[in-house]
Amino acid sequence: MSKFFPIIFKNNTLSLLDQRLLPAQVLYIECQNINDVYTAIKDMVVRGAPCIGFTALYGLTIWAKQQTSFSAESFDEAISYLKSARPTAVNLEFELDKARALVSKLTNIAEVSSRLEELADFEIKDSEVKNIKMAEFVVSDLKEKFQSRKLNILTHCNTGFLACGSVGTALGVIERLNHHNLLNHVYVDETRPYLQGARLTAFELTNLSIDHSVVVEGAASFLMKNRMIDAIVVGADRIALNGDTANKIGTANLSIIAKFYNIAFYVIAPKSSFDFNCASGDLIEVEMRDENEIHIIAGNRITPKESKAFNPSFDITPGELISGISCEDKFLLPPFTKTISELSNV
Amino acid sequence: MSKFFPIIFKNNTLSLLDQRLLPAQVLYIECQNINDVYTAIKDMVVRGAPCIGFTALYGLTIWAKQQTSFSAESFDEAISYLKSARPTAVNLEFELDKARALVSKLTNIAEVSSRLEELADFEIKDSEVKNIKMAEFVVSDLKEKFQSRKLNILTHCNTGFLACGSVGTALGVIERLNHHNLLNHVYVDETRPYLQGARLTAFELTNLSIDHSVVVEGAASFLMKNRMIDAIVVGADRIALNGDTANKIGTANLSIIAKFYNIAFYVIAPKSSFDFNCASGDLIEVEMRDENEIHIIAGNRITPKESKAFNPSFDITPGELISGISCEDKFLLPPFTKTISELSNV
Repeated sequence: MSKFFPIIFKNNTLSLLDQRLLPAQVLYIECQNINDVYTAIKDMVVRGAPCIGFTALYGLTIWAKQQTSFSAESFDEAISYLKSARPTAVNLEFELDKARALVSKLTNIAEVSSRLEELADFEIKDSEVKNIKMAEFVVSDLKEKFQSRKLNILTHCNTGFLACGSVGTALGVIERLNHHNLLNHVYVDETRPYLQGARLTAFELTNLSIDHSVVVEGAASFLMKNRMIDAIVVGADRIALNGDTANKIGTANLSIIAKFYNIAFYVIAPKSSFDFNCASGDLIEVEMRDENEIHIIAGNRITPKESKAFNPSFDITPGELISGISCEDKFLLPPFTKTISELSNV
Repeated sequence: MSKFFPIIFKNNTLSLLDQRLLPAQVLYIECQNINDVYTAIKDMVVRGAPCIGFTALYGLTIWAKQQTSFSAESFDEAISYLKSARPTAVNLEFELDKARALVSKLTNIAEVSSRLEELADFEIKDSEVKNIKMAEFVVSDLKEKFQSRKLNILTHCNTGFLACGSVGTALGVIERLNHHNLLNHVYVDETRPYLQGARLTAFELTNLSIDHSVVVEGAASFLMKNRMIDAIVVGADRIALNGDTANKIGTANLSIIAKFYNIAFYVIAPKSSFDFNCASGDLIEVEMRDENEIHIIAGNRITPKESKAFNPSFDITPGELISGISCEDKFLLPPFTKTISELSNV
């Protein structure tokens, strides 16, 4: 297990691992009230969709503990305030709506605050259980495919305990392979421009004592041509009905190169990442991010000041290139149009 | 034409653009004697195989101009000394051997030095003429393929005047497309880990007033899926008889993704890059470079100190994925085993 939990709630104080400083510094920021939690979410002390949701639940818990009586109006205000810290974060919305539903019939503030704390604790634990389930589906498939030999795995971006609170999605597969003594070595894409792989995934693997090497995205063909990796595992932002998967820029490259070299490519994501209303990846709009993420590295301008940069945040991996998609309910195989539709009816 | 020549020889002084400082600073280092030239080559003030060769020729010229009489022994010592500045640089060896052959029957030191200067001038001019020829072959092919519409081009690493002294190889195609008013926009891979694209190619394009955007390597699929590029142009370190091409790490990725999205992929390189004794890319040994090129960016350690990195310097693009290879003699089409063999007999 990891040595560092990104979210620790103890003695009515929420301690958040400041992910902006990783891996150079391991520093926890203490949140004493709802304003501190709002600021930590807004300023990206905490990141990763699941972690943002859990943090908000503890923020609401702290708020409730500091009230003398329950007011439905103030409670709604607190929820709206926390939601506004990252207006586009799906898990933030989702977890806070769960909190509202949970306390809808309560009037005793002590009961509200203890129920909220239980919910936050449960959501983290539940997510861990689900992460292990989805990871084990992939481990079973890999074990069968490779007749239990030790594997070399490539992953992209950050999908472990820093993003998910505990085990993680794609990194969960790596952790479980290691647990079963089925892991040889992990290659980690540095994941430009934000370097989530080099900074965060490498930090997670270091803390899990898993042998790993950081590579540039350009090395993918080299690794696959030379059979230095057996399988690729990635997470997902959003999965369409045909299996098309939106994930961090660079993911689609890997899927195409993997197909060319006949290397297994897995997507691991909770059921909440499936968009059953979205027929294909062509309908997913890709957010463009600040050019300066490319121009400036560690405070230094790398490119000429007259140069432009083009910085799409994610890309769409074609469903046809994915070997399997794993969620907590099921391990899905192609044709995804059929298997994902079936999942939507469960 | 470019505003900055990387190599300027004037009044018996060689001025070299210090490429280590680009694009932040444009600074020329003046070499007054052979020791200065040796140090500039060794310390990578000048880079790119052709430029290293030209620099050595001027270094030898400066040496000759400072002698009072000709001694074959001292001349050989000067050549060996310059070669030792970068022992693995093919062009350094090649150009200095040309110089030795040229003066083999001379004894007058004044004549030796003027012949050496003429040779250096000629080699730069000759390389420019050849670069334009190989670029125009590709321009013609693109013009026909796209019925003279303005094109969007993706390139990788650095292949322009900073590396080649004048026009360049892959960048030569971009310059000639622009010259013929057939260019819309250039996307430049930043080219991790050394960032030759972000630092050097972007600098060249800025100086050629060519509209461009730097992208991360991970954006290749996004660009191609969305038809934001029409063709890819790259250089080559070494080309095998079957067309397999060794070039900067990340090149093979582009060729595979280009095939998937049916995008034209060209290699542009002088005839000297063909290795007619090498049957396939499988026989090319890939140099591994220092891990710290990945760990450290602009003086900052990005990865955890316990993390390893794996840093192959180049990869092998399969010949079967290349649309055409252009050299100064000919534009080669597949099957390359046939067309490259024919070239070897010219």
